[in-house]
Amino acid sequence: MLVILRPNTDENSIEFIKTWEYLENIPDVQLKKHIVSGEQQKLTEIYLIGDTSRLDREQIAVLPAVERVIKISQAYRILGRHKDNNRAVGFDYNGVHFSQDNLNIFAGLCAVDSREHTEQMLKALQENGQVCTRMGAYKPRTNPYSFQGHGKSCLPYIFELAGKYGIKVISMEVTHDRQIEEISNCLDETGRPTGVILQIGTRNTQNFELLKAIGRQQEFPVLLKRGFGITLSESLNAAEYLATEGNANVIFCLRGMKTSFSNPHRNFVDFAHVPVVKRLTRMPVCVDPSHSVGSREKAPDGLMEIFHATAQGIIAGANMILVDFHPVPSKALVDGPQALYLDELPVFLEDVRITRETYKKRVQLAKKITPHQEIQ
Amino acid sequence: MLVILRPNTDENSIEFIKTWEYLENIPDVQLKKHIVSGEQQKLTEIYLIGDTSRLDREQIAVLPAVERVIKISQAYRILGRHKDNNRAVGFDYNGVHFSQDNLNIFAGLCAVDSREHTEQMLKALQENGQVCTRMGAYKPRTNPYSFQGHGKSCLPYIFELAGKYGIKVISMEVTHDRQIEEISNCLDETGRPTGVILQIGTRNTQNFELLKAIGRQQEFPVLLKRGFGITLSESLNAAEYLATEGNANVIFCLRGMKTSFSNPHRNFVDFAHVPVVKRLTRMPVCVDPSHSVGSREKAPDGLMEIFHATAQGIIAGANMILVDFHPVPSKALVDGPQALYLDELPVFLEDVRITRETYKKRVQLAKKITPHQEIQ
Amino acid sequence: MLVILRPNTDENSIEFIKTWEYLENIPDVQLKKHIVSGEQQKLTEIYLIGDTSRLDREQIAVLPAVERVIKISQAYRILGRHKDNNRAVGFDYNGVHFSQDNLNIFAGLCAVDSREHTEQMLKALQENGQVCTRMGAYKPRTNPYSFQGHGKSCLPYIFELAGKYGIKVISMEVTHDRQIEEISNCLDETGRPTGVILQIGTRNTQNFELLKAIGRQQEFPVLLKRGFGITLSESLNAAEYLATEGNANVIFCLRGMKTSFSNPHRNFVDFAHVPVVKRLTRMPVCVDPSHSVGSREKAPDGLMEIFHATAQGIIAGANMILVDFHPVPSKALVDGPQALYLDELPVFLEDVRITRETYKKRVQLAKKITPHQEIQ
Amino acid sequence: MLVILRPNTDENSIEFIKTWEYLENIPDVQLKKHIVSGEQQKLTEIYLIGDTSRLDREQIAVLPAVERVIKISQAYRILGRHKDNNRAVGFDYNGVHFSQDNLNIFAGLCAVDSREHTEQMLKALQENGQVCTRMGAYKPRTNPYSFQGHGKSCLPYIFELAGKYGIKVISMEVTHDRQIEEISNCLDETGRPTGVILQIGTRNTQNFELLKAIGRQQEFPVLLKRGFGITLSESLNAAEYLATEGNANVIFCLRGMKTSFSNPHRNFVDFAHVPVVKRLTRMPVCVDPSHSVGSREKAPDGLMEIFHATAQGIIAGANMILVDFHPVPSKALVDGPQALYLDELPVFLEDVRITRETYKKRVQLAKKITPHQEIQ
Repeated sequence: MLVILRPNTDENSIEFIKTWEYLENIPDVQLKKHIVSGEQQKLTEIYLIGDTSRLDREQIAVLPAVERVIKISQAYRILGRHKDNNRAVGFDYNGVHFSQDNLNIFAGLCAVDSREHTEQMLKALQENGQVCTRMGAYKPRTNPYSFQGHGKSCLPYIFELAGKYGIKVISMEVTHDRQIEEISNCLDETGRPTGVILQIGTRNTQNFELLKAIGRQQEFPVLLKRGFGITLSESLNAAEYLATEGNANVIFCLRGMKTSFSNPHRNFVDFAHVPVVKRLTRMPVCVDPSHSVGSREKAPDGLMEIFHATAQGIIAGANMILVDFHPVPSKALVDGPQALYLDELPVFLEDVRITRETYKKRVQLAKKITPHQEIQ
Repeated sequence: MLVILRPNTDENSIEFIKTWEYLENIPDVQLKKHIVSGEQQKLTEIYLIGDTSRLDREQIAVLPAVERVIKISQAYRILGRHKDNNRAVGFDYNGVHFSQDNLNIFAGLCAVDSREHTEQMLKALQENGQVCTRMGAYKPRTNPYSFQGHGKSCLPYIFELAGKYGIKVISMEVTHDRQIEEISNCLDETGRPTGVILQIGTRNTQNFELLKAIGRQQEFPVLLKRGFGITLSESLNAAEYLATEGNANVIFCLRGMKTSFSNPHRNFVDFAHVPVVKRLTRMPVCVDPSHSVGSREKAPDGLMEIFHATAQGIIAGANMILVDFHPVPSKALVDGPQALYLDELPVFLEDVRITRETYKKRVQLAKKITPHQEIQ
Repeated sequence: MLVILRPNTDENSIEFIKTWEYLENIPDVQLKKHIVSGEQQKLTEIYLIGDTSRLDREQIAVLPAVERVIKISQAYRILGRHKDNNRAVGFDYNGVHFSQDNLNIFAGLCAVDSREHTEQMLKALQENGQVCTRMGAYKPRTNPYSFQGHGKSCLPYIFELAGKYGIKVISMEVTHDRQIEEISNCLDETGRPTGVILQIGTRNTQNFELLKAIGRQQEFPVLLKRGFGITLSESLNAAEYLATEGNANVIFCLRGMKTSFSNPHRNFVDFAHVPVVKRLTRMPVCVDPSHSVGSREKAPDGLMEIFHATAQGIIAGANMILVDFHPVPSKALVDGPQALYLDELPVFLEDVRITRETYKKRVQLAKKITPHQEIQ
Repeated sequence: MLVILRPNTDENSIEFIKTWEYLENIPDVQLKKHIVSGEQQKLTEIYLIGDTSRLDREQIAVLPAVERVIKISQAYRILGRHKDNNRAVGFDYNGVHFSQDNLNIFAGLCAVDSREHTEQMLKALQENGQVCTRMGAYKPRTNPYSFQGHGKSCLPYIFELAGKYGIKVISMEVTHDRQIEEISNCLDETGRPTGVILQIGTRNTQNFELLKAIGRQQEFPVLLKRGFGITLSESLNAAEYLATEGNANVIFCLRGMKTSFSNPHRNFVDFAHVPVVKRLTRMPVCVDPSHSVGSREKAPDGLMEIFHATAQGIIAGANMILVDFHPVPSKALVDGPQALYLDELPVFLEDVRITRETYKKRVQLAKKITPHQEIQ
């Protein structure tokens, strides 16, 4: 059961104290407080965990600080929708809004290899009006003998250059909890010129220790990639780990699945699940066409398959795009074959724009459908 | 190796005879003749099968009837692209054009259950300007105790009604070669009021005896569904079976794959492979959003996931849509939960239209990309 | 619901007639009669299909011809176990017994290529005391340009030679119903020197038309291979198709599954499902180590992986082994790389023997376990 | 390239120094030293990493400290076989030998829930002559609201009781590098009454940070579970991570794969890969029948499917069994439905014994096979 308090309820107020005391005294039920800070107001949600089936919802609804009580299903307690479309969705971070209703593009380097390439990348982004990027410093690699990323040594110049070129948010993969501190410290040292989203890779989707550590900090939002070998439900439960520990600013990223049917794509593109994740949870949904498709192959219509996959994500309502670019793909140390060239960025952005426009028209069109009583 | 003769080459001409004799005398090589009948001309293609690596292409190119010689890879000899974009693509059937460059919609009944529902369906199609439909008479079912379709008994009224409502092409599944004759006979008996595409279901993609029988006839084009448990290459080889036997008027249909990651969709939507199939072969590519998604679930944006999957197919260049409708989904004998209502047809068609428009704009946009020398 | 009549009940007897009439008059229930002919007696089973939940079992049990009434679940009505371990299991064919309690070995040629190789194979079998074999005449091939088997032309010498070398049962794949008659006719023409089990390949597991045709004949038993891309339940339903049509003499064959995890094996060996199929159904369970493993790779312990897979099947209670041999594997037209040499046959048989002995000891050992009340 | 030095080469010896200097001066090649400590001798292996294709093997072979030079393939440099069957295989730990040639049984608690159950378990093991066990303290759970294990708080009594009941080695899962120290400290505090193998779970197979941390320590051997959603090659590369960091005392554990074909088993039993892993690498191979099968279902022959899966592993040469027992399965906090009862332990061990005996006989039998020249 979820108890939502009136906006901006003060924890020292008598209303709050009375409400909390009542809830705390319910036997066999644990309380978990979750704060949602929006631009205009602060919302306090209290999750009642345990055997809540016998509780009287009416009785709780009349407690002094309570706005409303929502019955929630077992699955995805915090991040789930629970058939209540009025709950706050989305969050702001460093001046950028993330929600199920808008679209942000994160073009950038899969793996940072040199200061020069980083600067070329960021410059191109600024010239094209972009304020977000992806930059990989810590790279988990299947083969122990492959390049593992420059790690913390490249953070200073990434952050400095990001500041120089007006980048507000960088999506950056972390593979161990110690890296959270490394990133935070380096941001401090460089004067906080930019923001960071902590990205969790597909091999770590069920690295519960990493999830807990990232969930416990409130400084950075999180981008969680779907596990490429587990069910959707298992991946959504992994997102719930983050929220349970205290951080519900989570973006969920589809990046293709490992199957025997993917070939000739690198992974099996799973972007038909964009509307599914939006239906099951309140998370903004990102798609990663680069790691899904994995090559620069072009259809006979002249469009690269990465462009097509991107359009498929957007036409179905994706809220974020994570896409690999590189100044010189042939020299990229990681995943060069799937990187787009910098001079392809303007067309890519235009392609995104017209597809997003059509998505919005489609949503308007949907309003014309007379609802039918669905058989459950 | 593929030898394309000059358009409208007469098989009794001296040029043809000399060319054929030369080719026939090449040791260890078999000839396979394939006729492509277009609106304006007849094209004769001769496939050289066997050890052709040592042949001198120049020598063959100068034979009297030869227009050009194409080196073809082992895979998909007839249906493949073989890096020659000039080859004829597509075909006409009963007044409807099928190619990689246009879009046809086949909305209709997954399984015909009654004359009344069939008429309601076809009437709605006519009212919405449609000339194609899907109608299932022979249904392969996983469970032996399930409804197996009305079979040949329902053909007469399907064809009559199709004629009455101006339907030119019906996509109809067949599960045994005897049904080809049943369909052909019934069309004769009813005065050929409509046309039929023979549809091969996903459980029969590797039913090679059925493929051979359908490939041997030239009367009906074929729609081959991708096998839900085999690789893309294996499914494309199945299409090649049809062509090898003589029928290259094949449409390839993506319909979702069976994996452990599909849930909550019925199958794992594979429409990111639309541009892939167009790149590897010359077949028009169909998508079946109904069997892929398998439910009427709706995203928070108000659009059903079937609509989203359809849009994803179209935005990436799909050439045909196979979609389930039913006058009363709750009474459908097969796959009711995924059927759209007849009153949803206009919005569905409008959604298809605006998405297809955007696809065309995207193709124009692609021309702005400066080509890069790709690393192979 | 299943009604088993007293053994050898005559259909003209008054008991039968009264029983049948009573059952026939139950509303909304269909009857399906199924005869099990054993060596000593004929057993008549009557399946009540439809809404049987409200029927009074006691009332039916006292009908004159009824021996007992079994409540059956929806799944696998005829071939399932339905928690009744007393039902007849197994059958005899041409002097060979097939059941869940014994073991038959079918070593032979995956594809018959010449009379000479066939004779060498059969001679080797006789010399090693074998009376069963596998012989492929009709071969379904993924690539339309591959060798498709000699078909009906090789049947005469296969059957003659089988007779000459004392082979009683040949497992032979069929891919179209017309082949049943071809086999039957050829057996007649050659004087019925041997018997045949009709084998259905993994690509045809859900070729329902083929299943129905084979199910309708009673002359030959059937070996159904598990579908390599569908669930176990779907494959068992396919077996049920055969039984529903009238032929319950079905052997179920595990042959490995298509997954991305199989490599370096050709398929993912699924022999851990041997006891599962025995638990869910009454079919004898065959394993095909050759197509599962797909190579002659040898472990450091000196045993080929095909031997190990075979042993894994047997140690868990497999009832039949289908294994590829060839006099000259390097010259085999199909699947040569997985064929064993004729001089490896004696060791293979000895390996099978000692492993089967151990399986029997294990079954004895199981009796020492005190049963626990299992939590359901 | 791998350079193996003469046994017991002293690193201060003139031979070593000269050899090292020579190798160190090869351009574009990195050296990686790896020590194998056996009972009788210390072996130094030097891996040459980089572009070694142009090196002269003969020239290196004559360096003063060198015993022999092995050309190794890219894959699994340290743990791979590289067609050299003479390399040392296996290791000793706390008096127990681990290799590809023997068998150890680790029966125990999947998750430690209480001191009482731990003691009952260990007592039963001692009574049945066992010196190894499995004990789970840190449990990674899919659902954030599930029991996560007692963690470090239960270590003291696990170790004390292990000492009391003569247990020499405990296999214990770790999910974060900090736990290595917790285990080591607790062993110190309790007086090192037992030994520990660090177990890496299937969700952490590609948690490269954890692999590196565990690989860097030499105190504990490692049991690495195969990743349930990645290829075998990727899992073997994960094992190689451990070796690359310095710890080659790695046991590889098969535990079933996640596929849509597993049902009704919890995972798809992959024990046919036992001989494959032994062929590709030098690691001892463990099987985990409990997590593969996932239930106490019993075949009609009276043997539980967990027993059958165990036998399948052993008959193909498995070197270690990891199996769940529990004094009161119905009260187990994790995976109770798959736990065996303590009174089933004696029969389980006897079943293992007779199957292992048969495996040994099979290996003897293999020597009778005349080797054929295999076609590569």
